[in-house]
Amino acid sequence: MNVLLVYAHPEPRSLNGSLRRFAVKRLEEAGHVVQVSDLYAMHWKASLDADDSIDRQPDARFDPALDSKHAFENGLQSEDIALEQQKLKWADAVILQFPLWWFSMPAILKGWVERVYAYGFAYGVGEHSDTHWGDRYGEGAMAGKRAMLIVSTGGWESHYSARGINGPIDDVLFPIQHGVLYYPGFDVLPPFVIHRTSRIDETRFSTICDALGQRLDNLWTTPPLAFRSQNAGAYDIPQLTLKDDIAPGQVGFAVHRA
Amino acid sequence: MNVLLVYAHPEPRSLNGSLRRFAVKRLEEAGHVVQVSDLYAMHWKASLDADDSIDRQPDARFDPALDSKHAFENGLQSEDIALEQQKLKWADAVILQFPLWWFSMPAILKGWVERVYAYGFAYGVGEHSDTHWGDRYGEGAMAGKRAMLIVSTGGWESHYSARGINGPIDDVLFPIQHGVLYYPGFDVLPPFVIHRTSRIDETRFSTICDALGQRLDNLWTTPPLAFRSQNAGAYDIPQLTLKDDIAPGQVGFAVHRA
Repeated sequence: MNVLLVYAHPEPRSLNGSLRRFAVKRLEEAGHVVQVSDLYAMHWKASLDADDSIDRQPDARFDPALDSKHAFENGLQSEDIALEQQKLKWADAVILQFPLWWFSMPAILKGWVERVYAYGFAYGVGEHSDTHWGDRYGEGAMAGKRAMLIVSTGGWESHYSARGINGPIDDVLFPIQHGVLYYPGFDVLPPFVIHRTSRIDETRFSTICDALGQRLDNLWTTPPLAFRSQNAGAYDIPQLTLKDDIAPGQVGFAVHRA
Repeated sequence: MNVLLVYAHPEPRSLNGSLRRFAVKRLEEAGHVVQVSDLYAMHWKASLDADDSIDRQPDARFDPALDSKHAFENGLQSEDIALEQQKLKWADAVILQFPLWWFSMPAILKGWVERVYAYGFAYGVGEHSDTHWGDRYGEGAMAGKRAMLIVSTGGWESHYSARGINGPIDDVLFPIQHGVLYYPGFDVLPPFVIHRTSRIDETRFSTICDALGQRLDNLWTTPPLAFRSQNAGAYDIPQLTLKDDIAPGQVGFAVHRA
């Protein structure tokens, strides 16, 4: 199988750097082919702007969505964007690995999503009708592929528990797992989260590697998170609200998992 | 009063550009002093890295948190970072204005948070004991200041409703409003959200400006969101889980608002 690891940490001699090397080795030893997009090493351009198209009229008004669509459809995307899209097409599984900074992904990785997820590629695809509101949330270009997060946090596990002050980790990651990964069609596996990264000695590092190794060994068999498919009957269209008889009376991110 | 508007849209001739000009004018006409950090116009460096300190040893291992602390405490921060910190200290109110891209802020604004929120400035401050776990979530450098989001989305309001497929807008914005703004001490006002931005004609634009104008007129009197202060007794320390007798049995982001 083909695995794309998108990696966003500025220091190779970090916990994340060590885990990345471990993950690549483990996957390769299992016979998989791995490509790594090491965003800091690539000097990835984080900010989406008019220069993402190669034929821009200098005085034209820039529309982030429509210009993205025009460039994608006409082969006018900046080369770095087109290359990452090729990697996504090539991959059977995609892993995003990053430290949780201010309760989300690092800016450099956010900018990878914004620039690589072109209009017509990762969104704005499929018909819009009374029964189908675009190929998204369970359908789309990434359908049939798997995705997983590897995330490190400085905070304690309890701080991210159901009643922890930072919010439950499932909710903190929902905009990424549901909004960035499930949206274009990925089957999203449970995240691999490492907490309290400032307190990791050799014993704990070894335990973490064992657990991560098992997750990588089971990349093709682990059941994905049971997000609800948008166009399969659970939602009223076009309001896109969950139908009254599903999880009745409940609200919040959690209702979107069966 | 002093107002800092941190603005993250690449095109001045956009809805966001128009709303920004309207907001600045309205605030200035009311007698306030406004500074704008127009991140795209400033070519803001989005990615946090070792170059954010001006005395880096080229071969030293980079630690995002500890290097940030060292640079902050010793006057060794990159000048763009120090300037934004000065603006934050100067401001009585801070407005973050941005389009919601992939259910979060644009990368360029995320990178503003990551780089400007230095260790020792926005986090890692205050004592850690059995009754007090740092000056954060209700305390900190921004205590006494107000903050508010102005956010535009392409999606419909119903898509962000309590049972909408994107998740409730309050939950989508929680990592920003609670995690980025309340964390260092801001009083966070309800957000001003504009939905379905591709369908805005002159009449609707006028209605939006009227509503935004009222929000800006009431910037000093609108009650903030009632997030729970971390060190005021609602949480067990150091687990930082909400005490059993508060919102008993409930979980998720919403329990952190009284």
